[in-house]
Order: sequence, then structure tokens, then C-alpha cells
Amino acid sequence: MTPSAADSPAELIISACTVLVHDDQERIGFAEDAAIVVRNGVVEAVTTTAAVAGLPAAERIEARGQVALPGLINCHTHAPMVALRGLAEDLPTEEWFNDVVWPVESNLTAEHVELGARLACAEMIRGGVTCFADHYFAMDAVARVVAESGMRALLGEAFFSSQGPEGRERSLEFALRHRGTADGRITTALAPHAPYTVVDDDLAATAELARTHGLPVHLHAAENRDQTDTSLTRHGVTPIEVLDRTTILHTDLLLAHGTGITDRDLPLLERADGRTAVATAPRGYLKFAWPDTTPVRALRAIGVDVGLATDGAASNNSLDVWESMALTSLVQKSAEGDPRWLTSREALHHATLQSARAVGLGDSVGTIAPGRRADIVLVDLSGPHTQPVHDLAATLVHSARSADVRTTIVDGRVLMRDRELLTIDVPTVVAELRERLPALVDRSHGRRVQEYDT
Amino acid sequence: MTPSAADSPAELIISACTVLVHDDQERIGFAEDAAIVVRNGVVEAVTTTAAVAGLPAAERIEARGQVALPGLINCHTHAPMVALRGLAEDLPTEEWFNDVVWPVESNLTAEHVELGARLACAEMIRGGVTCFADHYFAMDAVARVVAESGMRALLGEAFFSSQGPEGRERSLEFALRHRGTADGRITTALAPHAPYTVVDDDLAATAELARTHGLPVHLHAAENRDQTDTSLTRHGVTPIEVLDRTTILHTDLLLAHGTGITDRDLPLLERADGRTAVATAPRGYLKFAWPDTTPVRALRAIGVDVGLATDGAASNNSLDVWESMALTSLVQKSAEGDPRWLTSREALHHATLQSARAVGLGDSVGTIAPGRRADIVLVDLSGPHTQPVHDLAATLVHSARSADVRTTIVDGRVLMRDRELLTIDVPTVVAELRERLPALVDRSHGRRVQEYDT
Repeated sequence: MTPSAADSPAELIISACTVLVHDDQERIGFAEDAAIVVRNGVVEAVTTTAAVAGLPAAERIEARGQVALPGLINCHTHAPMVALRGLAEDLPTEEWFNDVVWPVESNLTAEHVELGARLACAEMIRGGVTCFADHYFAMDAVARVVAESGMRALLGEAFFSSQGPEGRERSLEFALRHRGTADGRITTALAPHAPYTVVDDDLAATAELARTHGLPVHLHAAENRDQTDTSLTRHGVTPIEVLDRTTILHTDLLLAHGTGITDRDLPLLERADGRTAVATAPRGYLKFAWPDTTPVRALRAIGVDVGLATDGAASNNSLDVWESMALTSLVQKSAEGDPRWLTSREALHHATLQSARAVGLGDSVGTIAPGRRADIVLVDLSGPHTQPVHDLAATLVHSARSADVRTTIVDGRVLMRDRELLTIDVPTVVAELRERLPALVDRSHGRRVQEYDT
Repeated sequence: MTPSAADSPAELIISACTVLVHDDQERIGFAEDAAIVVRNGVVEAVTTTAAVAGLPAAERIEARGQVALPGLINCHTHAPMVALRGLAEDLPTEEWFNDVVWPVESNLTAEHVELGARLACAEMIRGGVTCFADHYFAMDAVARVVAESGMRALLGEAFFSSQGPEGRERSLEFALRHRGTADGRITTALAPHAPYTVVDDDLAATAELARTHGLPVHLHAAENRDQTDTSLTRHGVTPIEVLDRTTILHTDLLLAHGTGITDRDLPLLERADGRTAVATAPRGYLKFAWPDTTPVRALRAIGVDVGLATDGAASNNSLDVWESMALTSLVQKSAEGDPRWLTSREALHHATLQSARAVGLGDSVGTIAPGRRADIVLVDLSGPHTQPVHDLAATLVHSARSADVRTTIVDGRVLMRDRELLTIDVPTVVAELRERLPALVDRSHGRRVQEYDT
């Protein structure tokens, strides 16, 4: 559609930039000297700079030398865990959980969660992330922060079977109460922790609730090879087979990590009813020295979307989805022994449409096109590290960094302009969180929220 | 030493920061609320902020909330290749060389090299790199840029045996003419390309020149497993055994990559005369899908220093040594299957003292201590992605990014202040380089500077 000067003023016009666009085959292209017209939080037009010259707009951004991308999506994180960033370093998975993270999480208060989430949103907005899928505790606090900060999120209240049926019920109650809030920016999921902490009956009941209420499910599964091996030894089935027999696999499912997915799981994933997606967060797999990474090539071959993620900062040390994009490309090339695989354009496809579908927003975000929500980031490529540009996709994936994002926009609202955060006061959050850290990190009580035993 | 107010004004005083220091066992620690006094380009004292309160200084930097680190060292790069950034993507090594890089390099002029080096120095200074080891062609141009930009560098004029003895002679002539120039910031090396492009007699003659003139040698060797396998098939010896029999191994040697180093090479490396160091640039190994990475743990076990590097931006896409530091930690954990290995403190040791020794500057840089050259970077940790700080070493390695470097200092001279480059005009360099790119990237002539055939 061509915007007309006779309309009422647009909410926002971004001009003079290069826009990452997708064609009808989902191939990535770049529109040069382009403009984006935003009205009521929605992209009204992607056109030329010349075409918007005289158009009235409440706000204009002249973005010469910048590239407009769909906002990045963090498809699996535990945002409040930024409070534990750097607390559990250089440990195997089991010690990380049992000796540090789960003891510390028994001290968690809603206040810790709220401050952590606020700090996390600040970090993500600065890194060009406009939407995140969060799976944690005390999620009312996270929902408040999403509403205030202007971000978009898929939120789920996590539960273990050790909490009894109340865990599952709270997860449902949270999902129903918050669905569609924050002017529609919050969507919700049921959030069982994982097949090794949630028993089959509980998973089956969760699947039933998902169907009844039309909710997606977000959980960890087949996180690593150990978990798959233990599941096979104890139950004779893989974690994906557990999801199948409990019918969780046949809900709209967002599955975190999946580095322990085996060849025998692939036909099940291919035949699953509902939307099936996997979130990959490769930094943590390297750091924990897991033997595998997410089998992205095999998943793509059966049509499963793979979204980009960071996991929580207690393992990943950052919520830098830009880094996840680059690392996914690098680690996948290495894992497949094939430098031609997972090109920069493929990485950008994971970062945009695949990530949007993974969090259930495939029709509303993930591409800059008329009718899509205006979740847009502007990236400055004038720095010496991003020049010259021979191949813009490669520049974006392999040379640019999250710090090159200058402006972050969600639903047409500018949340960061020229690196300045407009909705979160970082020094105040850091100071308030710092005061509460001693109580959070105390492990003298000997308690844990859960036991890691794959 | 305690600075005294009776002295003439210091050149530079940095106060109110945290300083990364090494103890006499080379263990890394952090001095809080510390100050650094610089005089004549040298660190005169590392003391407390209180102790420098009344001291006169030509320049003061109040660096509250920042950490002072030794400037990063890029132990192996081809700086001017930033001109080819993104030109040869997603290719196997052989096609990368034969189909793109070596054809394009046959068009190289001193002007391309100079503009590329200037852009590279801008990128490195912005990323906290104060010194680089460069191995390329037309190195007079690089030496000019080092002199102008204020950086420190170990420079070597690369040669192949296909150039005849003149290649080796030019490399020597360059090394002798530039050694100690730029107020001592330039040191030089002989720079044979690699055992697969320089024949044994030429390597032996180079070793002899190195001994005669007291020059180090910087070369590629055992870059990947293919090269080692080919060397074994053709010559019955590994690339490291070639270096041993030609006596290159017994010079002061900086060896790039070494991912193809085998167990049988380790005793040779351990017994080598002279200083032996390896530069690791893990990003490219992932991107090329090489089956191995540098065997850092085995090299450390025999006392070989491993410095951090980026290689050229034509393969690595950036000169971001900060990223190399993080990736070295991550990839080493993964390669060894051990999350306890290559901790953040070990990564910082590679980035500081080991990298300094690798480029032959172990006595003058690599640590912030009295008597060392004042090559210092100030890193801002106030961003949301680096808060809170539970473990400062982990924050630096795994959460901070090169863009968090605010100030870069070489020999006491500020080259970047609060992200503003003081010695290089990036827009001018980019514009001049852009004009000359069509001539550079033309491959219609069918020439190559060399043939890749391991």
C-alpha cells in the first residue's frame, strides 16, 4: 500500500535506511534508501524515502547508514536470572544446578524477580531484542516489567511435579490471567520444567489443559545427551518419546535446547500435531562442554523451526541474541563439518521468521511488512568493524555486534533511541538489586528448589 | 614505588578504577579504587586513588566504574584484509584461497594496504587492541599507519618460495629497516608464509637469517588437520617436523593456528630452542568447519604460550580480540569436554602475559606494573549486560564486549577517549577505500598470488 498525504499523521516514519525484507519464498533481501511508515503500532508501508518526503508524522527517524531489521527474539530465557550472572562459573551442569542455582533460587522473592527482569529487559532492548520467551518463577513480576518496559513477551510460570498439582494449576492460572495483557504484547504458555522434573501424568494433564484452553507449551527437553541416555536407561524411551506418549508433543510446543535429540526422535517431531519449534542457545552448550549442539540441519530437514535464544544469564552470561545468531552459524558449520551450511542469510532467517514462529507470533512479527506489528531495530554499520560492506548479510551476522543497535522499537514505540533507554532506569535497578544480592546468594540453609538428576 | 608530589607532573594519571594486576605467580587479581601513574610512556606506579589526589599531571582520567586492563594484543592478523571483509563467505579453505582471496590479492596495491591497515587500526583501537602481529604484503604501508595511529605492532613482510630468493630478502630488508621505528613501537619478524608455500631450503635460510640478525619468525604452520595429513603423505613428516628439520622451530617463533598439531609434535615443541608461541584464532576454525581447534591444553602442559588472535577479517569478519578471548574459553571447554578448563582467569592470562610473550614483548607489555609500557584500556562495566558483578573475571570474559572499551592508551598516549578515535578519521578512510574496491575485487584476470595445495 502507498501511504497518502491525505491520511492523518503517521505515528512514526523511519526513512533513508536499508530495510531487511523477506520475499514470498521467505528469501532475505535488502531494500535500499527505503522508508517504513508505522500507524497504530503496525507497519503500514515499506516504501521509498522519496515517497514519504511530505508525509505528516508524529515522529520521524532519519536513519541514513543504518539497516532496519525485525527486532530480535529471544526464544528461550529466564530473564530474572541476570541477578545470578557470573555466580556459577566453570561447572558441570549437575553442580551448576545442585550446588549453586537451585539452592540460590530457594531464596528468590518476587522483588528479586522483578529487579532481575527489569535489568534483563534493559539489556535486551539495548541488544536489539524486542520479544522474549520467558520460563521462570514469580512471573507476575515479569509481566509487570514487560508492561512497563514496552517489550513483547511469551511468558510461562514454570513448575516441577515436586510442587504437587498446585504447580500446574498456578501455571494455568498465570497463563489465563495474563494472556493478551500489556495491550496484547503479552502472550502466555504453560511451562512444565522438563520431562526429568515433571512426571508423565503431570505432562499428560498439562497437554490436556493446553488443548482445552488453546495455550502453547514451553519446556526444556533432551537438553543434552546425558539426559537422553538417562531417560533411555530408566524409562526405555527418549525425552522426545516421553513428550509423544504424554501428548505434549502434539500441542503448540516450544522446546528448549534439544541437543540430545536423536535420529529416532526425528520422525516423531516431523509427525507432531500442532506447531513444533526448538530454541537453540549455543553459547551455554559450549560453556557446559556438552558433547552436542542443537541438530539444526536435521530439524530444518523435517520442517521444524529453530529460534535463537540465550537461555538465562546464569549459564550464558548475557542475553545477547546477536551473539547467538553468529554463534549458531559458526557452531552449526563446525558441527556439520560443512562451511557452506548455515550461511548468514540462513542465520537471519532463524533470527526473524523462524524465531517469530517459535514463539507463536509468526503472523504478527518476524518481518517488516505491511500489517505486521512494528517491532524494528536500527543498526548502525558506519563503524570501522562493519566496513566495507561486500555482503550485507555477512556484515550483519559476522561483523556487527549487539552494541551496533542504535534504536529499538516495539509496537511502534521507541524504547531506545541512539543507545539511550527510554523506559528503564538502569542505575536505579542495579542499585536496588545490589542491596538484595546477599540474601539471594546465601546458600547456608542447605535447601534447593529441586534436585538435578536428569 | 610511591609517586611523590615533588616530581615533575606525570604524563597521565588514571584514578578511581579497578586495575587488573598479576602477582609474582602470574595469578590475576583486581586492585580496587586504584590509580595508575604514567610518565614517559611507562607505568610509574599502580597505587590507590587517595595516593594520587594532589599529584600534578598533564592529563587525568577519572575512571569510576571502569576496569583498567593491559591492552589486548592481536597475535596474528593480516590487518589490511579488512578490505575483503565479507567477500569470501561460506567457503571451504581451498576455495576461499584459490577462488577469491589469492586472485583478489594479485590486485593489491600499497594504497589498498595502507587504507586497509588504517581501517583495521581504527577497528582494533575501538576494540581495546593496543598491539598486533601483522603478516602481510606491502608492509611499508602498514608501518606508516602504525607510526601515525599510535599503535604498537610486530610486523613481517610475508613471502612465498614462488617469489624466488627475493621474497626472503625483501622480508629481511623490511625487518631490519623498520625494527625499533615509531619510537620503538614497531618490532619486526621474518615472515615466511607457511611450510606448504615455502620450501625447506628457503625455511632453513630464513632460520639462519633469524639467528644472524636476532629476528623472530612469524609463520602459519599446521593450520589444520588436512595440512598435516598432506604433509605426512607427501613428505612423511608433520609441518612441525618440517620446522624442526629446517631449524625454524629453534628460532623465536610465533606460529599461527596449529590446529593440526599432533601428539608427536609436542615433544619437538617442548624441546625447541628459543621462544615458541602459538596464536589461536578460533572463530575462523569454526567458520571453515575445520575438525580441530588449537590444542591449547596440550601446549600449556609443555609450557608453550598461546596468544589470542583474530586472523584477517576476510576469514574472521572482524578484528575483535575480545571475542577471541571469549571464544577461546568456550571452544576450549567444548573441545576438551571439560567445563572446568579454561576459566575466565585463564582466558585473561592468555589475553595478557601469554599474548605479550607470543609477540616478543613479554618484558615490556602484557601487565599493568611499574616499568611496563603504558598500554592500557579502560572498560566500562556499568551497562545492564555487565551487571551485577559476582565474579569480575567472568564479567570481563563472558559478559563484556569489545564495545565496552571506552578508552585505549598506547605508550601513555590516548588513542581513543570515550569511544572517540583521536588518531584516525574513519569516514575518510572508508570513502577512499570504497573508491578503490572495484579494482581490488576484480577477478577477471585469472591470476593468483599463490596456489593453495596444502
